Amino acid sequence: MAGSTLGTLLSVTTWGESHGKGIGVVIDGCPAGLPLSEQDIQLYLNRRKPGQSRFTTPRKEDDAVEILSGVFEGKTTGTPLSLMVRNTSQRSGDYSEIASYYRPGHADYTYDRKYGFRDYTGGGRSSGRETIGRVAAGAVAAKILSELGITVTAYTRSIGPVSIHYDRFDLSQTEKNAVNMPDAAAAALAEAHLDACRAAQDSCGGVVECVIKGLPAGVGEPCFEKLSANLAKAVCSIGAVKGFEIGDGFEAAKSRGSVNNDAFCRGTDGGIAKKTNHAGGVLGGISDGSDLVFRAAFKPTPSISAQQQTVNRSGEEITVSVRGRHDPIIVPRAVVVVECMAALTVLDLLMVSMTSRLDRMQAFFRQNT
Amino acid sequence: MAGSTLGTLLSVTTWGESHGKGIGVVIDGCPAGLPLSEQDIQLYLNRRKPGQSRFTTPRKEDDAVEILSGVFEGKTTGTPLSLMVRNTSQRSGDYSEIASYYRPGHADYTYDRKYGFRDYTGGGRSSGRETIGRVAAGAVAAKILSELGITVTAYTRSIGPVSIHYDRFDLSQTEKNAVNMPDAAAAALAEAHLDACRAAQDSCGGVVECVIKGLPAGVGEPCFEKLSANLAKAVCSIGAVKGFEIGDGFEAAKSRGSVNNDAFCRGTDGGIAKKTNHAGGVLGGISDGSDLVFRAAFKPTPSISAQQQTVNRSGEEITVSVRGRHDPIIVPRAVVVVECMAALTVLDLLMVSMTSRLDRMQAFFRQNT
Amino acid sequence: MAGSTLGTLLSVTTWGESHGKGIGVVIDGCPAGLPLSEQDIQLYLNRRKPGQSRFTTPRKEDDAVEILSGVFEGKTTGTPLSLMVRNTSQRSGDYSEIASYYRPGHADYTYDRKYGFRDYTGGGRSSGRETIGRVAAGAVAAKILSELGITVTAYTRSIGPVSIHYDRFDLSQTEKNAVNMPDAAAAALAEAHLDACRAAQDSCGGVVECVIKGLPAGVGEPCFEKLSANLAKAVCSIGAVKGFEIGDGFEAAKSRGSVNNDAFCRGTDGGIAKKTNHAGGVLGGISDGSDLVFRAAFKPTPSISAQQQTVNRSGEEITVSVRGRHDPIIVPRAVVVVECMAALTVLDLLMVSMTSRLDRMQAFFRQNT
Amino acid sequence: MAGSTLGTLLSVTTWGESHGKGIGVVIDGCPAGLPLSEQDIQLYLNRRKPGQSRFTTPRKEDDAVEILSGVFEGKTTGTPLSLMVRNTSQRSGDYSEIASYYRPGHADYTYDRKYGFRDYTGGGRSSGRETIGRVAAGAVAAKILSELGITVTAYTRSIGPVSIHYDRFDLSQTEKNAVNMPDAAAAALAEAHLDACRAAQDSCGGVVECVIKGLPAGVGEPCFEKLSANLAKAVCSIGAVKGFEIGDGFEAAKSRGSVNNDAFCRGTDGGIAKKTNHAGGVLGGISDGSDLVFRAAFKPTPSISAQQQTVNRSGEEITVSVRGRHDPIIVPRAVVVVECMAALTVLDLLMVSMTSRLDRMQAFFRQNT
Repeated sequence: MAGSTLGTLLSVTTWGESHGKGIGVVIDGCPAGLPLSEQDIQLYLNRRKPGQSRFTTPRKEDDAVEILSGVFEGKTTGTPLSLMVRNTSQRSGDYSEIASYYRPGHADYTYDRKYGFRDYTGGGRSSGRETIGRVAAGAVAAKILSELGITVTAYTRSIGPVSIHYDRFDLSQTEKNAVNMPDAAAAALAEAHLDACRAAQDSCGGVVECVIKGLPAGVGEPCFEKLSANLAKAVCSIGAVKGFEIGDGFEAAKSRGSVNNDAFCRGTDGGIAKKTNHAGGVLGGISDGSDLVFRAAFKPTPSISAQQQTVNRSGEEITVSVRGRHDPIIVPRAVVVVECMAALTVLDLLMVSMTSRLDRMQAFFRQNT
Repeated sequence: MAGSTLGTLLSVTTWGESHGKGIGVVIDGCPAGLPLSEQDIQLYLNRRKPGQSRFTTPRKEDDAVEILSGVFEGKTTGTPLSLMVRNTSQRSGDYSEIASYYRPGHADYTYDRKYGFRDYTGGGRSSGRETIGRVAAGAVAAKILSELGITVTAYTRSIGPVSIHYDRFDLSQTEKNAVNMPDAAAAALAEAHLDACRAAQDSCGGVVECVIKGLPAGVGEPCFEKLSANLAKAVCSIGAVKGFEIGDGFEAAKSRGSVNNDAFCRGTDGGIAKKTNHAGGVLGGISDGSDLVFRAAFKPTPSISAQQQTVNRSGEEITVSVRGRHDPIIVPRAVVVVECMAALTVLDLLMVSMTSRLDRMQAFFRQNT
Repeated sequence: MAGSTLGTLLSVTTWGESHGKGIGVVIDGCPAGLPLSEQDIQLYLNRRKPGQSRFTTPRKEDDAVEILSGVFEGKTTGTPLSLMVRNTSQRSGDYSEIASYYRPGHADYTYDRKYGFRDYTGGGRSSGRETIGRVAAGAVAAKILSELGITVTAYTRSIGPVSIHYDRFDLSQTEKNAVNMPDAAAAALAEAHLDACRAAQDSCGGVVECVIKGLPAGVGEPCFEKLSANLAKAVCSIGAVKGFEIGDGFEAAKSRGSVNNDAFCRGTDGGIAKKTNHAGGVLGGISDGSDLVFRAAFKPTPSISAQQQTVNRSGEEITVSVRGRHDPIIVPRAVVVVECMAALTVLDLLMVSMTSRLDRMQAFFRQNT
Repeated sequence: MAGSTLGTLLSVTTWGESHGKGIGVVIDGCPAGLPLSEQDIQLYLNRRKPGQSRFTTPRKEDDAVEILSGVFEGKTTGTPLSLMVRNTSQRSGDYSEIASYYRPGHADYTYDRKYGFRDYTGGGRSSGRETIGRVAAGAVAAKILSELGITVTAYTRSIGPVSIHYDRFDLSQTEKNAVNMPDAAAAALAEAHLDACRAAQDSCGGVVECVIKGLPAGVGEPCFEKLSANLAKAVCSIGAVKGFEIGDGFEAAKSRGSVNNDAFCRGTDGGIAKKTNHAGGVLGGISDGSDLVFRAAFKPTPSISAQQQTVNRSGEEITVSVRGRHDPIIVPRAVVVVECMAALTVLDLLMVSMTSRLDRMQAFFRQNT
């Protein structure tokens, strides 16, 4: 329950602070035989890198990953994968001022209360750089899922008041704009909204949506370890996430049973399918073979240049303006983080589901011993 | 990871099916010395009992709890508490028909796919009766929290389109109406809405809100074991929950940093406080000393008398009307379930937080050995 | 980490005190489709029942098990099995005296120090009756293993100074004598030794040995979750166990590499085998396909009628003689407990091992979706 | 359950192979405020370094540790400590031959069976170098324990047939001889025995003993999470360990209750003490305030130059002589490993024990909020 380990069979442990020597992750329980290179992981890390548009911090972060263990002759060995990204461009001089006060919307105050003091350089462990470990691990999980025919795709659903339109929805557009929206027209509006926020020295929130295709029915455990519950935890463990919903989510709370229930029908492959997917791919917390669809709500970046009121460590009320290089919005760079947390969660529960039936266990051991 | 155990230091394991011999829970790690009687637990179970209004099923369920272990001379001993409620009024004859087909919105299909067959009597393990174990355990957790000065209170925030008004908000009203809303006027509207749903052989969703007062700052772990992440999991593990949000939740995604950030200020007790609580009581996933406020979205009851399309176990498309005694809405009875899942989550993390500082550990062992 | 839950995929949670209302266990993660009746479990419980020979307590304990959940139409459903044995013959009047002092060799003192008070009736949670939950769960695990071609067999290896001779070893003898030794001649000597102990109002220790046949190679995880390490924990968690060894164990510490190394050779089935089994079936903590062989050392029953010195709760030195109905030796009744802990441990790790290779996971999902 | 993570509140995750880029460990849950430098850890790592006597491999391993995260301004922050040792002197050319066959007594065969292939350079993950992570983490745990007044000390109890004499026992001698025995005369005999083993191209086993002083009563949980059970697992998870015993261990199995029971008495400090310590410091699996005393049996080093029979990967029987730089005995370098595994285990359970009593929890939160 030390907070930096997640997962039962596929277990990830992240470490590292914003301005320490580096950030990393250990992935334990990765099945043997997966071809894996640093490039596989780097592609995912590059998606969360700053400096890629005018809406992300101009800080230069190379974030070059090194595989320290667990791969031999190009394949995973089944033993722990240790991945590390050295911090290179951090200047701790930037942060001497914020040591003295509590930034509104940040974890400065709660870390001080919990631990008696804090690493005040760049947010320490509560920095957005902590997600590097999540993304490195998620890249591996996504590759395994892909070998099993399962894809995980996230994108920006909304930025402030601007949402994508489903009749203009086109996943091939997602990475063609600065905000990772699969809808060029909405992306243009969102960019205009962000420019206005920046001009006002302000920041903005948004929603990330994620779709998982190819997941077999039967994944997720009853009661506390529902697939939906584990996704909720994984997603809400990302800094700045304030809400999670699956399928129709909060809209379902306003709906009626006759509308919200998805009718079962014969699928095109002769199997059983659903006519609609208000459920978002889970029934009773277990995957039903439909697309898994969920969303995460991100609050606005708390670091803003506008004046704010707060207190210093002595408890005196002061007015501050948080300087430094900060994104005016978290969402575009968080898309890959959501995708990675989903991949880790789904893969872990998929592995667990292999033991749900005795007949399948018997067949497995007959074939493999 | 077998799905029925939750918690690290305070660990609960539930068991039981709707129409089996009973439902129960084992609570392990409960601190010794808590005065505990069956009545303490029964009061909570009575709050989730059906048959209390015209909006809950007229089934008679006594749900009398028995403490089987862990209490000696009226106090907890520190060893596992085993609590059981015998099932008494279930008639399995009611359910012979639904064995043959998959009810829309239920877990019939996913259990069949996961396990190869299912207990079709009354939903088996995916029945709402599964929450009896959660509530019995939560009653114990709430009592411990109360000894530590912490209270957990949930209520109905909305039913279909009807929401409470915060200027008429009055917690003393919550249990005075059939829908557990702390606003008499909204409750009247909600009851009218439910009557309309019932007349249409339909059902309705809603939102439960929960407030935790008295929680010290510093509870919750960084990274994956954030307080908010664990609350999200606990709440989304309740059957029929489709969404979770803390503080401003999805509204924060539409907001700006200058609005959403809560300014720190001097509190009335001379300590540090926040002028607003958009964050809902967590910063960086760790409690900040403000009220913890979160919400859960419940889908409409899937069992409705109206005609629905589905398939039977042979894959043939059929039309069904789900008979039986079902609530037209889940929310009023789910209020206590949300409260209990919150109590279990907060207590577990509170216990974990005792080890976050070496100086406090040193003081603890100096005093206690 | 509340102490009463064990296992990752197959998870067991026991509860209950010697003189409470009952003893039970919840088994979560049991694969669906196992035919299971109360009789399957009762057969194992009967093997640990007292009153079966002059060396076991004459207390009458019926220990009739009831399956409360998890079985439908004669087969496991995949959801939690709850098993309970009601306590029937306990008279708490027997125990009023021992409330006032600390019995040497018992957990009275440590429970008082840990929890501030204790359930003094019959040892409470530290009673030998706590093993009922272990045995009930182990019976289920052993049945699953048997469906997979794996058998677990324990027996008495030694009692005080009397050990079995491997050239007279005959498993068909094990249950034909009062001490569960697979060697009639040694059993006769052991019975004579026990009679002498009893005449001296004393008790005696012994060793249980366990052999697991049919376990495939590759079970157990590297580093901390070695098969041997998990067996050590499971066995040393049984009350009164003071030592564990696998293969040659402590003898290996006196040996040389040239003797202790097991040479690999061609097996009779054309595969790879070992010429000897000093290792006891594990290399690097992972099963090697040979028989798994390990032993547990049990201390003498601490309850003896002979006079002993101790202190009372006020710290005054006193002399006591522990009355009551106690076995002069723990070992014969512990044989089935060791067997059950081994079955639970091996099955859990066997389930985990299904995910060690990507190619096998791919084949599994191709076949089962 | 991926095998490389251990612990509940203080959780360690190790990674790394013998000939990969490095070896490391992440320690999560370390309380904040501990002064910690690389030197604190290096001192422990130096104790397991090879090349310190003629009985350890002449390989040069610098094993210089780097703290990558979790320390700020010289103190632990409460967030994960990441520690790494780069591998520097490994030449993979040494190992090309052993890729083709299975070394007796090694994990080559079981890794191949489990994972389909293996990292054959220097043993990969099953190498003794894997213990670097354990020792680095253990150094931190030992420092925390020391701040709480608890010391953990291990030494060589026996080498082959040579054991220490308790009347010549002198802990100040332990590090003055090449075999880490606290008895100069026995050490001389042990060295002679090892010289004879080496002359015969053979190796030898031995026993490590460990004593923990200052541990308060009440540490360890009932049932499965006994202190003794967790020590057994931690110790048996060290490669080459074949047995564990606590207190009198296997000797207790030959003893009588009247001898083995430790009488309680008034201690010199006016509290309650024990006249003897056959139990080794645990009763019912919970610490009793006496010294904790346990032992680990190590098998002989499996790598020997003498001719051995085995099979190659094609299953053909061959004769081999394992070349390379190997210790003729594991025990002297394993002393610090046992100490470290004990420190990690005891600290974790000590932290858990803080929540065993409600009155203590109430006092804790009254003081700290």
